[in-house]
Amino acid sequence: MSSETIVRAAMVIIGNEILSGRTQDINLQYLAKGLNEVGIRLSEVRVVPDTEAAIVGAVNALRAAYDYVFTTGGIGPTHDDITAECVAKAFGRPLIRNPEAAALLEAHYARTGRELNEWRLRMANTPEGASLITNPVSTAPGFQVENVFVMAGVPVVMQAMLDGLKATLQGGSTMLSRTVGGEVGEGIIAQALGTLQTKYPAIDIGSYPFYRPGGITGTNIVMRHTDAALLQQAITEAADLIRAHGGDPVYPEET
Amino acid sequence: MSSETIVRAAMVIIGNEILSGRTQDINLQYLAKGLNEVGIRLSEVRVVPDTEAAIVGAVNALRAAYDYVFTTGGIGPTHDDITAECVAKAFGRPLIRNPEAAALLEAHYARTGRELNEWRLRMANTPEGASLITNPVSTAPGFQVENVFVMAGVPVVMQAMLDGLKATLQGGSTMLSRTVGGEVGEGIIAQALGTLQTKYPAIDIGSYPFYRPGGITGTNIVMRHTDAALLQQAITEAADLIRAHGGDPVYPEET
Repeated sequence: MSSETIVRAAMVIIGNEILSGRTQDINLQYLAKGLNEVGIRLSEVRVVPDTEAAIVGAVNALRAAYDYVFTTGGIGPTHDDITAECVAKAFGRPLIRNPEAAALLEAHYARTGRELNEWRLRMANTPEGASLITNPVSTAPGFQVENVFVMAGVPVVMQAMLDGLKATLQGGSTMLSRTVGGEVGEGIIAQALGTLQTKYPAIDIGSYPFYRPGGITGTNIVMRHTDAALLQQAITEAADLIRAHGGDPVYPEET
Repeated sequence: MSSETIVRAAMVIIGNEILSGRTQDINLQYLAKGLNEVGIRLSEVRVVPDTEAAIVGAVNALRAAYDYVFTTGGIGPTHDDITAECVAKAFGRPLIRNPEAAALLEAHYARTGRELNEWRLRMANTPEGASLITNPVSTAPGFQVENVFVMAGVPVVMQAMLDGLKATLQGGSTMLSRTVGGEVGEGIIAQALGTLQTKYPAIDIGSYPFYRPGGITGTNIVMRHTDAALLQQAITEAADLIRAHGGDPVYPEET
């Protein structure tokens, strides 16, 4: 038996602009890949509107069920930015003007010669006892309360925040991924692939059809596990399986 | 008072490939926009892995809470395609070989001269009593059980399925959207915008900072409501607000 440690995370994407279709989310994929690198598996995502009930409900459901929760969105200065107060409510903590965050904003606005008004200072509000997440792009910080990490929604800011805090996360065994593909229909190899899954129950085996210009179709087989040797053995068998059905196995760039 | 009818939908995105970061989801945005067109508001989305507990749990939680639920992913021929059996479990219905779906697949494979094996026939499995959703791209249908619509994950197929079934959905009042933007910082107009939100509590007012090359920053104000006249009045006031803070209001293309 392997001694792998599985660490799981969930994400809450906060924002009417995602649910209305106005904005295409790209934070999920960035978070998923970043967490993979440090041995954390993104296991559930919820996209919720900018309403207190939805945000508090999602944060409380997910923080109880997963090792980590990451939120994106709703930490700007305007009336529709309610994430900080909702996370405070979720934890039953008062929302305070965080002195460290306020000092950061004061220094930033003094440096740039712009006015730090009361609404911009809202970006210094955090639940009591929160620690800050550095924002190297535009200063206004995210924050962490217990296992919940609150980040910006603007991708360039979210990415910088995650890059900075990633090293502080306690990950488990890193999920490794191997892919082999071939120009063989999913339905053709489905049975053999099912047998392979039965032989390697611990490996997460995914089958993804592809369609390329010129009517070329085929299947990518993606295998995920923490044990590189086991993966190597199984991916070799998957390549054999593609070959046995008349395909020529190719190995798309691994991520 | 307005007599608007609000119809809400939720979405379940099923697939390890989204949660691992391998695949960027684009179905959410397409569904959101498509539902907007027929007066249905996408109000919550969950992304779940290819596991029975996660799929059944999400489908049951959401079908009880929303008028419609749309799922994407997990209806192919391979072992990791378990959406049909999970939706059957969620409804407590047996999973059957749907005769209409089987006939479609038989005709398709006969026409294309390919083998319709037992695994491909899995794509004809639906919960008992389901009605089919046409797949004009690759034949294998989606299906509907009560208020739950099960669609493919491959975007070109998902889009064709949604386009076909959209006209059959019972929508409510159409949510209209107006946007006005200007090169004024969010923090500068936050107070006035908060006052505007208080004046128009029924309008969903969102504030979104933008960053353009050359250090140009500003804010887009997005207003959503079903009443065009009310929106026109409020958006005019938002434009005045931008002007009052030294900005030149622009109206990005409406969607």
